[in-house]
Amino acid sequence: MGTLYVIGIGLQPGHLSIESMNLIKSSDEAFAEFYTSKSIPNLINELERLTGVRPTILGRRDIEDEGGRILMKALDEGKSVVFLTIGDPLMATTHGAVAVEAARRGHTVKIINSVSIVCAAFSQVGLSPYKMGPIATITYERLGYRSKRHVDVLLDNLSRGLHTLLLLDIGDDGSFMDARHAAGLASNDMAERGFNPGELLVIYLARIGWSNQTIMVSAMNEPPNGLGEPPHALLVPGELNAVEEEFLLNVVRTDPSLLKKHKEFIRKLLRKAEVPG
Amino acid sequence: MGTLYVIGIGLQPGHLSIESMNLIKSSDEAFAEFYTSKSIPNLINELERLTGVRPTILGRRDIEDEGGRILMKALDEGKSVVFLTIGDPLMATTHGAVAVEAARRGHTVKIINSVSIVCAAFSQVGLSPYKMGPIATITYERLGYRSKRHVDVLLDNLSRGLHTLLLLDIGDDGSFMDARHAAGLASNDMAERGFNPGELLVIYLARIGWSNQTIMVSAMNEPPNGLGEPPHALLVPGELNAVEEEFLLNVVRTDPSLLKKHKEFIRKLLRKAEVPG
Repeated sequence: MGTLYVIGIGLQPGHLSIESMNLIKSSDEAFAEFYTSKSIPNLINELERLTGVRPTILGRRDIEDEGGRILMKALDEGKSVVFLTIGDPLMATTHGAVAVEAARRGHTVKIINSVSIVCAAFSQVGLSPYKMGPIATITYERLGYRSKRHVDVLLDNLSRGLHTLLLLDIGDDGSFMDARHAAGLASNDMAERGFNPGELLVIYLARIGWSNQTIMVSAMNEPPNGLGEPPHALLVPGELNAVEEEFLLNVVRTDPSLLKKHKEFIRKLLRKAEVPG
Repeated sequence: MGTLYVIGIGLQPGHLSIESMNLIKSSDEAFAEFYTSKSIPNLINELERLTGVRPTILGRRDIEDEGGRILMKALDEGKSVVFLTIGDPLMATTHGAVAVEAARRGHTVKIINSVSIVCAAFSQVGLSPYKMGPIATITYERLGYRSKRHVDVLLDNLSRGLHTLLLLDIGDDGSFMDARHAAGLASNDMAERGFNPGELLVIYLARIGWSNQTIMVSAMNEPPNGLGEPPHALLVPGELNAVEEEFLLNVVRTDPSLLKKHKEFIRKLLRKAEVPG
């Protein structure tokens, strides 16, 4: 029987852990799935430089349509196989299906964790995970339909005082949605529900974990210029404790008047949510 | 002006990233805060072996009562200072306060991410972060009072179909709460609210990320034997999609009859939550 190591490489090559490096070096075969590879210059070259191993790149089709057949073949031959993914592995359903298939065939499956955008985003801006609400993705229109799930999640989280991480879609051509575009969609969606997006504070995140990471704070309807290249994400705080507030003011350099407006917005929502029935 | 790098080392020394190793090696001074150090055998020695640097260990008092004075002194001297913490940094308020104080003094603050138990727990068992509800901690009684916040969070999450990560308290003597003890408390608390803990599926997690990691699934009122040493955590799934369910059955090896009971429990709660007023 083979062993499958589903390994997260984190958000940039420097996030690669000692444990993962050793597993990659000692594996019989190495595969990688990077739908997002175009955003990380020289990712493969850098991985090869660090580990001496050049992984075989699998496309979305190899994984989703063919069930990772090439991976299963190596495992069925009794090999030790590493499967590299961006971020923390298994945060995407696709990789879960590969792990399930390998386990069904009787192989050992090990998940090797790394930095995930979900936790890293919170950590970078000092927001507490105890108020982490469900995350959502702002998506492009597809087949004439654009999902508004992110608005439901955001409003539900805000009315409970919870923080919301909004991830951004990847287009069919592999390009990332930009934070300005996402904020425009979210502003319209919130206005449509009767809320003023100018009262909402958004933390705009770009290239989290990279050496040129950028974090800016602005109203939802006034996304900042100068964020630079994607990947981007949006983070909307809920209720803030004293340390979170001080962190946003002093470390993230948030405009105090915008923070004040946002806190009033949350307070109004929380009062509304408390009214029974 | 100095530079403060708040660096997460992950859940075990092998999680240390290439980036963090380089920052530790090139820093002027290295400090560490490991309230949990006793749980990680030889953590300091292992860090020294990997980086060649032996960090100065700070206690809870150095950080919380003295505001990290020794750190600030080094920063005020214009030094580059690394401050090592377990997991992903800034997931604890204490570290946020240190970052705020450094920023207030005009120093540069950089947060260097690593593996957090919050994301790693979900990733290890294939649960989707899109249904990650707020996390909670099951705590010991203190001054005659034991918080029941974890029950409120769990019930609220379950009634929305969300997954709940339950972290376990650290006693005043530095010892970790054990999963069996935590499950006993949670079972009583749930029964007190009129729910049958025997219908609830709990994923029992031990030493996540370590080479001897153990994951077992059982009813809330029947915690498994053989989990081994702490740290432990509990994860209670909410609504499950097809891949999550297959993952629990095939990779985590969940008892199908327990899973069925749990799904019925969730379905009942979801129906109840839908009734307006």
